[in-house]
Amino acid sequence: MQSTNYGQGVITLTTDFGTADWFVGTMKGVILRINPRATLVDLSHQVPPGDVRAGALALKASYRFFPARTVHLVVVDPGVGSSRSGLVIETRDYFFVGPDNGVLSWALGEQTVRSVHRLENERLFLQPLSRTFHGRDIFAPAAGHLSAGVPCRELGPGQPGWRRLHWPRARREGHAVCGQVIYVDHFGNAITNLREEDCGFANERAGTCLVGRVRCPLGDFYEAVPHGNALGIWGSSGLLEIAVNGGNAARRLGLKVGSKVKFLLKPVVHSGKREAGRSGRAS
Amino acid sequence: MQSTNYGQGVITLTTDFGTADWFVGTMKGVILRINPRATLVDLSHQVPPGDVRAGALALKASYRFFPARTVHLVVVDPGVGSSRSGLVIETRDYFFVGPDNGVLSWALGEQTVRSVHRLENERLFLQPLSRTFHGRDIFAPAAGHLSAGVPCRELGPGQPGWRRLHWPRARREGHAVCGQVIYVDHFGNAITNLREEDCGFANERAGTCLVGRVRCPLGDFYEAVPHGNALGIWGSSGLLEIAVNGGNAARRLGLKVGSKVKFLLKPVVHSGKREAGRSGRAS
Amino acid sequence: MQSTNYGQGVITLTTDFGTADWFVGTMKGVILRINPRATLVDLSHQVPPGDVRAGALALKASYRFFPARTVHLVVVDPGVGSSRSGLVIETRDYFFVGPDNGVLSWALGEQTVRSVHRLENERLFLQPLSRTFHGRDIFAPAAGHLSAGVPCRELGPGQPGWRRLHWPRARREGHAVCGQVIYVDHFGNAITNLREEDCGFANERAGTCLVGRVRCPLGDFYEAVPHGNALGIWGSSGLLEIAVNGGNAARRLGLKVGSKVKFLLKPVVHSGKREAGRSGRAS
Repeated sequence: MQSTNYGQGVITLTTDFGTADWFVGTMKGVILRINPRATLVDLSHQVPPGDVRAGALALKASYRFFPARTVHLVVVDPGVGSSRSGLVIETRDYFFVGPDNGVLSWALGEQTVRSVHRLENERLFLQPLSRTFHGRDIFAPAAGHLSAGVPCRELGPGQPGWRRLHWPRARREGHAVCGQVIYVDHFGNAITNLREEDCGFANERAGTCLVGRVRCPLGDFYEAVPHGNALGIWGSSGLLEIAVNGGNAARRLGLKVGSKVKFLLKPVVHSGKREAGRSGRAS
Repeated sequence: MQSTNYGQGVITLTTDFGTADWFVGTMKGVILRINPRATLVDLSHQVPPGDVRAGALALKASYRFFPARTVHLVVVDPGVGSSRSGLVIETRDYFFVGPDNGVLSWALGEQTVRSVHRLENERLFLQPLSRTFHGRDIFAPAAGHLSAGVPCRELGPGQPGWRRLHWPRARREGHAVCGQVIYVDHFGNAITNLREEDCGFANERAGTCLVGRVRCPLGDFYEAVPHGNALGIWGSSGLLEIAVNGGNAARRLGLKVGSKVKFLLKPVVHSGKREAGRSGRAS
Repeated sequence: MQSTNYGQGVITLTTDFGTADWFVGTMKGVILRINPRATLVDLSHQVPPGDVRAGALALKASYRFFPARTVHLVVVDPGVGSSRSGLVIETRDYFFVGPDNGVLSWALGEQTVRSVHRLENERLFLQPLSRTFHGRDIFAPAAGHLSAGVPCRELGPGQPGWRRLHWPRARREGHAVCGQVIYVDHFGNAITNLREEDCGFANERAGTCLVGRVRCPLGDFYEAVPHGNALGIWGSSGLLEIAVNGGNAARRLGLKVGSKVKFLLKPVVHSGKREAGRSGRAS
């Protein structure tokens, strides 16, 4: 990246609130009252209701493209009002704010964590506190104060850890790596849990994906196969995706979250040049 | 709220334009030409087409969480091009801009109104004026100029009042308060017209909601009832909501706007502590 | 327009990425890393997947309402990863960034073009470059650098032209002008390819539209016909639209992109005053 900007006050918002209601806008109002110079960016508000894993993936796929010191605010919080804690976690590069239900954990797994604090300083909450909208009353104020420079320790007491979501592991089976669909995007591309490092001996030109009974080649771009054909492709998040050139793979192949995908390996020697590039990106 | 910021140039936008077309973006372009420093926040653009009451509720539920002097722009305007006026209304805390069809009135009912002006200064309109997009040609310029500091009186002549929408009143029936669903949100929560002050003798732990033939308890948070069960809950807008823990109440109970809801009262003495907190919020 | 603002750093975004995923947010992160002062405005992210013409229309209908020097970024790019070029085109008023597949061409047809450059300076790309998300890795960085003042020539080599999309022409047939529906908006209004200048002798009060077998009058605003009735109306983009007062014309009349619409002419003399106004706007 060409430049980094400390103290810019960017806040990203990821929720399962949808965009039809006034909920997200209200959170932004709360933030702007606290820090009128905050720059607010929506990651997604269409995380399926209560789907902590989908929220975790959206964050993991995008957080590192933001300026240093960005506050990433995630409110996918089926346990709102119950005893789960709210957290702020500071890493070397970013702040993460959200409920302690694992939604932050896939992104945090790639970061150097500096501190973990619970959001318990009630003087920073909106009063009276609602029972159902901690996004507005607890999380948004926390993000606003952080973006304005308030240190994490003022938001509440420290704690040693945070809840982690299980990342579905690739499983080796002879000359195959077995994985599964973890997300279907707007275009119907089926994103799997398979990372290039899980498929260590794969020669991209020679590899083949097995989706149900359908075999499809691995391609470098969608048009590498004829219009309407399926292919595997290393997607923009570094994960294997099943796509259809000019079409909707999920609909066409009946894929959904949990569908099995196999990556068939051919132990062919490759140059290693691209791999080096890819591993540079994972950092 | 921790701080207020005068002159920040925040403008909220609420419309029934949807987000698929270029309409909202175009309004923002018009505003930024007039005031490049304006901060634009979407409240909702998915108000059902022409549904003035839904727009009025979105505004009422969220306007007060924004910085002082925010310009709240609402374009839900089935009568565009006809004789209805466009208005700017200045209150002690905010500016409200929109058609004079009642869409502003539920928020205004909670505010101290200082002035009401019609948007008739054609020098501030976009020219040539379209017949179908006053959001772009009249309302957005008005909001832009207001956020840049132009006084209301320059936008057009004053008038004494504005059109008011009827707020459906709670009706007392023996030991029950009768209300109705006025909005169904993204999660399927059914928001009613019942405010805590309508249910004066309610002890929150003892109260019961009657939705059709289904009785459900009043809870403090969603997980107060088993997963999949219905409950009543005082929602984040200060109104009684019917919800299902981990589910969609509207779908489950067949609720839609207009559905009847009863709140059954049990005249039990309560501490009064929470009530004080709630009434502090209504101000 | 009352004021223009050079150097404001506004960037508009138009894509077919939808809003459910993190793709658009990620592009914004990339832009803000390069130019933290950029003002980001969404035009639409619900262009139908791969529909270059719908993207071209969204841009054409809205680009000119933005401040001078705005960077209009359009990523509707079914050929991502193949040999199509990415372009930046500078006109007298704006910058346009997008793939060279015609998506920029309808807007450019109204602008004075100053330069055309291909996005080939790899030092400005995100590295490693993904195969499927040039919006993030090539186009967003280009827009960010342009908004920060980097001259177009630093983004890559110049070229003389760009790919143009065919604009469906109006066809004269006796006393009728024959056109077609080119877009259906959120309200179900069917926008046609017919411009007022295509219908030169039209007297607005006397003209009639023929949609299938349905005749409908030309009106000045929706309420010019009884509730539920169809009318033709000169829409906010300067194009003839078929609408239903208080209803959804596309659903009611079975209209979709490609449906035929005739405009029946009555050669009545008119004042000419409005026409002058309209042609002033087209510039």
